[in-house]
Amino acid sequence: MKNSAADKQLLYLQVYEHILSRIQRGEWQAHDKLPSIRVLAAELKLHRLTVFRAYQLLKENGKAYVKEKSGYYVNSPTTENEREILNSHPRTDNRYKNDISEIQRIPAIYQFSQALIDPNLLPNLFLSDYVKKVFDIYPKIMGTYSTVQGDGELREVLSGYMMQRLKVQLSADELLITSGAQQAIDLLARLYIRPLDTILVERPTYSAALDIFRAQGARFLSVDITPEGYDLNQVEQIMKDHRPRFFYMNPTFHNPTGYTVPASQRKHLVELAERYQCLLIEDDAFHDMYFDEMPTQSLFTYDTDGWVVYLSSFSKYVAPGLRVCAIVGRNIVIEPLITLKSLVDNGSPLVNQKLFLHYFGSERMQQHLHKLRTALQIRRDIMEQELLHTGWKWTTPSGGLNLWVELPQSISVDTLWKLCIQEQVSFVPGRMFDPSGDMNSSIRLCYSFVNEEQIGEGIRRLVKIAAHIRG
Amino acid sequence: MKNSAADKQLLYLQVYEHILSRIQRGEWQAHDKLPSIRVLAAELKLHRLTVFRAYQLLKENGKAYVKEKSGYYVNSPTTENEREILNSHPRTDNRYKNDISEIQRIPAIYQFSQALIDPNLLPNLFLSDYVKKVFDIYPKIMGTYSTVQGDGELREVLSGYMMQRLKVQLSADELLITSGAQQAIDLLARLYIRPLDTILVERPTYSAALDIFRAQGARFLSVDITPEGYDLNQVEQIMKDHRPRFFYMNPTFHNPTGYTVPASQRKHLVELAERYQCLLIEDDAFHDMYFDEMPTQSLFTYDTDGWVVYLSSFSKYVAPGLRVCAIVGRNIVIEPLITLKSLVDNGSPLVNQKLFLHYFGSERMQQHLHKLRTALQIRRDIMEQELLHTGWKWTTPSGGLNLWVELPQSISVDTLWKLCIQEQVSFVPGRMFDPSGDMNSSIRLCYSFVNEEQIGEGIRRLVKIAAHIRG
Repeated sequence: MKNSAADKQLLYLQVYEHILSRIQRGEWQAHDKLPSIRVLAAELKLHRLTVFRAYQLLKENGKAYVKEKSGYYVNSPTTENEREILNSHPRTDNRYKNDISEIQRIPAIYQFSQALIDPNLLPNLFLSDYVKKVFDIYPKIMGTYSTVQGDGELREVLSGYMMQRLKVQLSADELLITSGAQQAIDLLARLYIRPLDTILVERPTYSAALDIFRAQGARFLSVDITPEGYDLNQVEQIMKDHRPRFFYMNPTFHNPTGYTVPASQRKHLVELAERYQCLLIEDDAFHDMYFDEMPTQSLFTYDTDGWVVYLSSFSKYVAPGLRVCAIVGRNIVIEPLITLKSLVDNGSPLVNQKLFLHYFGSERMQQHLHKLRTALQIRRDIMEQELLHTGWKWTTPSGGLNLWVELPQSISVDTLWKLCIQEQVSFVPGRMFDPSGDMNSSIRLCYSFVNEEQIGEGIRRLVKIAAHIRG
Repeated sequence: MKNSAADKQLLYLQVYEHILSRIQRGEWQAHDKLPSIRVLAAELKLHRLTVFRAYQLLKENGKAYVKEKSGYYVNSPTTENEREILNSHPRTDNRYKNDISEIQRIPAIYQFSQALIDPNLLPNLFLSDYVKKVFDIYPKIMGTYSTVQGDGELREVLSGYMMQRLKVQLSADELLITSGAQQAIDLLARLYIRPLDTILVERPTYSAALDIFRAQGARFLSVDITPEGYDLNQVEQIMKDHRPRFFYMNPTFHNPTGYTVPASQRKHLVELAERYQCLLIEDDAFHDMYFDEMPTQSLFTYDTDGWVVYLSSFSKYVAPGLRVCAIVGRNIVIEPLITLKSLVDNGSPLVNQKLFLHYFGSERMQQHLHKLRTALQIRRDIMEQELLHTGWKWTTPSGGLNLWVELPQSISVDTLWKLCIQEQVSFVPGRMFDPSGDMNSSIRLCYSFVNEEQIGEGIRRLVKIAAHIRG
């Protein structure tokens, strides 16, 4: 932490919070004498005045009382809530939660809740044969750690690939390899968010990202994403008024909606980012999952001053079993991320990176991608066909893995979800993607994980249950 | 975060800190008008009184001043430090550092700084052949995600293995698979440490763990580790007086010293943990790296009430390229860790887990381990031989990867290190393993990474440079 004068001013507040948490954990109980100012100052290696101010605050707030010539004593808990905390096991901690992950762990045959690709659509036999070759090329691969930043050869190849995709100059030093996009988002959250910081997100947005940001203590500002993109005036107003730490966005085949922010808005967004010094985190996990035409140029392309970080995950459609993602950014972003990565896992496993590298560079990969797009498009079409007569609303996605469907007000999504789970049909309620927990009449249906027949049967069950609720 | 009454009391302090950080980032500059209490309360969705108290505190601390009938204004920075922060790029953040990782990134031929095993000592050819088999058994492995907790089959096998090692009942649910021990330590740190919390560590201890704990805002208490273990009276006194959140320990072939805490202390340590409700994190990364006899029973064995978490990393000696580690613990520890793991990377890659599983279960693995122990012991002997005539002090380790050597006071370790790096010899200065940054006359020499010949030549260079400094 920065050891600034301002931080020193805050110390007594931290001490105050610290004493309270020790009381909550039961170290000092009601009517126990607290350590003397001298003793606590020595323990915390702080100035006595700092501890004195913390004790004064405890007294003011009714957490402690003074007995003359004796010292400070812990007050009885004053609220139900405080009593509850005192009775809980000292080791539990509910800071962390991941709601969508819990929904996805519920087994279902008609699995529309996981935005994953059906393993049957991946070239498994080819991959198996392929692997042996990689182990022949690198006989010591199993015995070797990767560098923290990621395998040099892989970063070299990916930076070349990204230069083509992004149409900018890039060096291998401007990439960091992570274990999936999830880790990339978590690293960025840890680096940029301090408690109470505001960040800007789309509404709706990727649910697990919200949980990651929440765990770091972020407060959310949001801008609606529509088939036409964002309201740029609103984005500017938010950046101007609130100076969010970053804007986490998924502008291409957006999860959960499938919308794409139009090319005409992208340059302007980068200008806003520069003007208001708001980092853009461009999560581009679905870039290669297009149906008719290739996606429009990414925001990173327009960035000349290091205000865009680009996340390119290959987990979903190359090899989910490998979990390879690249963070692309300028040095000012990548350097501190490398240090953080060295702390969190000291670098992603080398085996995965080498397997990925060779498969990714193969001709087979492009063939696979082509087939995969066709298969996904067929599944999307089947799902839409089954929903056609319902009158429900959605925008046909031109890429990605999901339909974002708005149901009539008369259908309670929570009731629908509970009944569907009983019938082996799963989906994710819309509110989980909304930073403010609304969007109660939308649902996300993923068409990429189960086969054509299952999509048909699953959606028919869903529609039948919905009709039952309505009637 | 818990939404207790106590937390609500703290809100205004958080708001105070929050406003200061926005001033530091340049959002509001000296003599700018701060938003009105009404406006900021609306923005933060807080009660006006909360914001009012924060503003009062800003005024008290000289961060803001009041103009009558107008409002609150930002004061000029009052210290050099504050001015510096204002001039720095708003995006840099120096919360995170990892000193040992930086030392280890410096290239050297005589590499004694990395506590890793020479890839030439691993059964690479066998592993390569082996891999194909695994891909035949699981043809869809590349296309499949692991569950968050880790592959079920692997946890089943490892829990059986751990029951034998630890001599306790265990189910597969009591294991969490992580990407190396580093990730395991980071997860535990995030779960248990809040800023200013104290934790207990050994002195010296694993340097990267210190950096992880520091990043979470921990304060350190330490107990010396010696060839005879710890001073248990001191451990008890610390637990009693300070209630540390946990005791992070590496009691078997300890890194960096190689010492082992004797069996006679282990049961007592678990009793202390239970009595003072202090979790023990038993990092057992070097368990299988013994030379003469198998290590003594682990602390986990004595635990009946869930106060020990056991970390078993297989990264180092089975297959560093796979990064597989198991956290063994009771439900109250494992459950919140699974949620956290779902946030940080949604589960370790499946390919690694399956490759590991099959190799680990093979007969070849035991043969490999036997050979590896012999090879390491030979390297240890060669290093000791080369140091014999120096008069430097160390205790011969009966396992692990390092010598912990105390140099005469007349040799400056920093000077030695700088000169050695120039001569292609690297090691880690002792102070990096000390939570208080002392231990200035010790160094860690790792004998596992370079071959016999290089150990000889490297140590001769080191000794020569030391003699030169002394003379």
